[in-house]
Amino acid sequence: MQRLRIGLAQINPTVGAIKENVRKVMEYVEKARGLDVDIVAFPEMVLTGYPPEDLLLKPQFIEDNIRHLKEMASNIKDITAIVGFVDAKEDIYNAAAIISSGRIAGVYHKMYLPNYGVFDEERYFQAGRKPIVIEFNGTLIGVSICEDIWYPEGPALYEALEGAEVVININASPFHVGKWKFRERMLATRASDNAAIVAYVNMVGGQDELVFDGHSMVFNEKGELIARGRPFEEELIVVDLDVEAVFRGRLHDPRRRKEKLFLEEGEVERVKVDQIKEGKRALPPREAHPPESDVEEVYKALILGTRDYVRKNGFEKVVIGLSGGIDSSLTAVVAVDALGKENVTGVFMPSPFTRKESGEDVMALVENLGIDFLTLPINRVFMSYLQLLKAPFADLRPDVTEENIQARIRGNILMALSNKFGWLVLTTGNKSEVSVGYATLYGDTAGGFAVLKDVQKTMVYELARYRNSIGEGPVIPERVLVKEPSAELRHNQKDTDTLPPYSILDPILKAYVEEDRSFNEIVSMGFDEELVKKVIRMVDRSEYKRRQAPPGIKITPRAFGKDRRMPITNLYESY
Amino acid sequence: MQRLRIGLAQINPTVGAIKENVRKVMEYVEKARGLDVDIVAFPEMVLTGYPPEDLLLKPQFIEDNIRHLKEMASNIKDITAIVGFVDAKEDIYNAAAIISSGRIAGVYHKMYLPNYGVFDEERYFQAGRKPIVIEFNGTLIGVSICEDIWYPEGPALYEALEGAEVVININASPFHVGKWKFRERMLATRASDNAAIVAYVNMVGGQDELVFDGHSMVFNEKGELIARGRPFEEELIVVDLDVEAVFRGRLHDPRRRKEKLFLEEGEVERVKVDQIKEGKRALPPREAHPPESDVEEVYKALILGTRDYVRKNGFEKVVIGLSGGIDSSLTAVVAVDALGKENVTGVFMPSPFTRKESGEDVMALVENLGIDFLTLPINRVFMSYLQLLKAPFADLRPDVTEENIQARIRGNILMALSNKFGWLVLTTGNKSEVSVGYATLYGDTAGGFAVLKDVQKTMVYELARYRNSIGEGPVIPERVLVKEPSAELRHNQKDTDTLPPYSILDPILKAYVEEDRSFNEIVSMGFDEELVKKVIRMVDRSEYKRRQAPPGIKITPRAFGKDRRMPITNLYESY
Repeated sequence: MQRLRIGLAQINPTVGAIKENVRKVMEYVEKARGLDVDIVAFPEMVLTGYPPEDLLLKPQFIEDNIRHLKEMASNIKDITAIVGFVDAKEDIYNAAAIISSGRIAGVYHKMYLPNYGVFDEERYFQAGRKPIVIEFNGTLIGVSICEDIWYPEGPALYEALEGAEVVININASPFHVGKWKFRERMLATRASDNAAIVAYVNMVGGQDELVFDGHSMVFNEKGELIARGRPFEEELIVVDLDVEAVFRGRLHDPRRRKEKLFLEEGEVERVKVDQIKEGKRALPPREAHPPESDVEEVYKALILGTRDYVRKNGFEKVVIGLSGGIDSSLTAVVAVDALGKENVTGVFMPSPFTRKESGEDVMALVENLGIDFLTLPINRVFMSYLQLLKAPFADLRPDVTEENIQARIRGNILMALSNKFGWLVLTTGNKSEVSVGYATLYGDTAGGFAVLKDVQKTMVYELARYRNSIGEGPVIPERVLVKEPSAELRHNQKDTDTLPPYSILDPILKAYVEEDRSFNEIVSMGFDEELVKKVIRMVDRSEYKRRQAPPGIKITPRAFGKDRRMPITNLYESY
Repeated sequence: MQRLRIGLAQINPTVGAIKENVRKVMEYVEKARGLDVDIVAFPEMVLTGYPPEDLLLKPQFIEDNIRHLKEMASNIKDITAIVGFVDAKEDIYNAAAIISSGRIAGVYHKMYLPNYGVFDEERYFQAGRKPIVIEFNGTLIGVSICEDIWYPEGPALYEALEGAEVVININASPFHVGKWKFRERMLATRASDNAAIVAYVNMVGGQDELVFDGHSMVFNEKGELIARGRPFEEELIVVDLDVEAVFRGRLHDPRRRKEKLFLEEGEVERVKVDQIKEGKRALPPREAHPPESDVEEVYKALILGTRDYVRKNGFEKVVIGLSGGIDSSLTAVVAVDALGKENVTGVFMPSPFTRKESGEDVMALVENLGIDFLTLPINRVFMSYLQLLKAPFADLRPDVTEENIQARIRGNILMALSNKFGWLVLTTGNKSEVSVGYATLYGDTAGGFAVLKDVQKTMVYELARYRNSIGEGPVIPERVLVKEPSAELRHNQKDTDTLPPYSILDPILKAYVEEDRSFNEIVSMGFDEELVKKVIRMVDRSEYKRRQAPPGIKITPRAFGKDRRMPITNLYESY
């Protein structure tokens, strides 16, 4: 038994771009072979991208991915590769191909199909029924896919009992803040419980609402972390594994001999592959990338999510309406960090209700960022609407109608610039606003991608301060961080005219939206009854706005969108 | 053994309105008791409405529905009722309560959970594991829920083998055109295969994208239809069942005695309820409501879907932008039929590109319908935008940008009227346009509900002709039915400048969107390769528009929305 060299290729595929994904897989296969890697593992469904959603209902899509897999397999030699794809038998499966010596030596079918949160795998796939181990002269390696590893009695257990010293788990696991800690704790437990090395490889990249954060990990058989990939970046993580230590450690483990009794012959599939390469020079131990703070990882998620949404959809440049407020300022900074300052245009659209300070703050931001910039005052257009609507509105007093007209004029202008110049409009609303519907549909919600959609206002401030603290000094003017939030759609308007302070609103929203807490539970957290009632009502009644809002990046355990599927027509009153 | 009188209460509950739904159930329980009904059955999840989606993740919602069920049960006496609700044990179940003598005598848990199309039941529910029969002095009645009855080896089989002469199946089965024929054929087969009477009760009403069409049915043990409820209307269907004939017919059926061997004791739960009422006077045989034509049932689905969306969301009145074209004309007629002419306002927003005929056609329609009406010419507002954008657009030629600005001005005006007067905006786009993205986001797509979203243009014409053929004579001017479709956003514009004729486009779209046909398959249907490629590309690339479009009524086997879940970021090219 020898040193086994494993490679975890955390790469960034694109949904539907099968050919391009194959090209990228082959690039990393070559890279791994150059490093004398014995077995290289790629993320779940790396050939199709994840999640392809209802593309999976198209027979041709499935056929295309299998055809490309087979073609690709014939070019993979002198290394074993585990590649995620969609298999088709009497039904379709979320699958991992084990490729060796130019052929598909075996295929594993995912056994646990997630069907909660953002996942719909029961909609598409049949569940697999058989664990699998790869036989590498003497060394056994188990394979499983994503959700599989979260179950103590899942395939990894059976694979370890069959003798696998290493269990490889391939993933397309979407990011939310701090999720890596849960993964790390669970994987460490799984490794020590099974007395097996656990190698976890995760996808990287943005796909609509989701960001895959990479952050691949390897744990030894004692559950100790021995390697960690970078978050939010493509990387090939190469580690030498001491499989002999695993084997030795198991010889006198009475628990294992007892459990072994439950396994019947043939219950676990066996696949033979190449020999382990001999005479490799030992790699130096890997420096584990240190974990990041919450705010740091959220910021990186926003950058990657924005960059991938823009680029994968064929855009180069974006346009953002700048108000001088914290949300649009932070959105612009994220856009510049994601795409480069030459690809971002800011548009300032003042009205008579816009304060002088707002214009100054916009100018300061634009100068700090060095982005292109337009000023388009909306007053004359606004007046033309009021003139047109004078008769039907007769003597009715101005109300939210006139405020919304202004926001929708701005939306129309941004979309016109988008149409004329091919720029994608980034919207700037945050999760607190989106939750309570404090936004104008077709106005400030108009655009292709909502960068801060899942970021509460209090977190927006944290992110702004964090970003000001790194790089070449502050980019968001200090005044933007301290002034009172306002939509500036009427004189002296403040967010607090309509909403409680965000320091109170945000925890109520978190409890209600992300944790499904009841009215009574939230009140018992110490909030005013009437206020909680009002907030719940605002959230429930603005579902229709969210249904027409652009997608944005999920950073919490529950985002709006696919993650939270509420009826619009809904008369439930929980208070 | 006596005559069993059954009632099928096809009623219209509202999602979340548990109290109001209980009130309605009790109203029908009383009605049924007054008619000496022995057992009355209500639709699937009638207490919560269907589908409540992620309300099911709120523990309080589940508790509320159980509390109300228990309270209600104590008031149900001298009749047995089957009531759909959500049960909670170690997990939650889609369930049917069997209520008798003021108590819940038994509970059935749905065994087959649909998780395709618009359904997400695996997201929420655990599957039940035990069929059930109700014992009525001597007569046995099986119970199952919706999807259960679609499986030949489902609970109805086991219930019939246990001796059930009648199998009641409660439903929340969404409408699509012609679906009743599939249900009817399947239910007839299930009845004759099981040699049991099958009573199928379905919900009525609109819920966001879905319409439940009622259309409850009873089949005798030979598979002959003996009663059919009205489509799209609440109704209590009361039928006397000759259960003795079922019993007699089975005595000498060799197939049944053989199958019976496979059933073990206790596999089917048994629940005892009241006696069958004696001395009832026989009901006259029911007149079966005759089936309707496709166009007739689609028209009724649009009316019910529109009425329920508007009213259940707390609106009374709607506003519609009228262009003089067929889509907005039909939408206005549906709105009037759904809500009454006093609740519909039409708005004509001409530009210099609007032809004189369009205005005349709008006037004629408005007069025929007798609705309120506003004319708001957009030219001056349009000019104010062009003036503002003169500098950034410099010497660039007019293109689709200027067309979209006009459409978005109209969207802004309709939304302003909505904000000021509390009218819901109905949008007018049809499925052909929605499919290829021939619409302006935030322009003609701006509004709360899209009446024709799932109706192809060719069907729009059929519906218009159908509606003109009934009632008090034509309401849509003949010229609207014959003139060439145009968006009138530039001089002499025609839909065919951009799109193939709808008679060619619609079948291509049906093949691609509704049937997942591949490029090659569609070409082999006899369409031009380049054209098919172009259409597929248009469909794929306008997913971002659909994601921000309002909900509309599903009338086909595959609608946009929850029914077709495509990624926006999607580089798959099937051609």
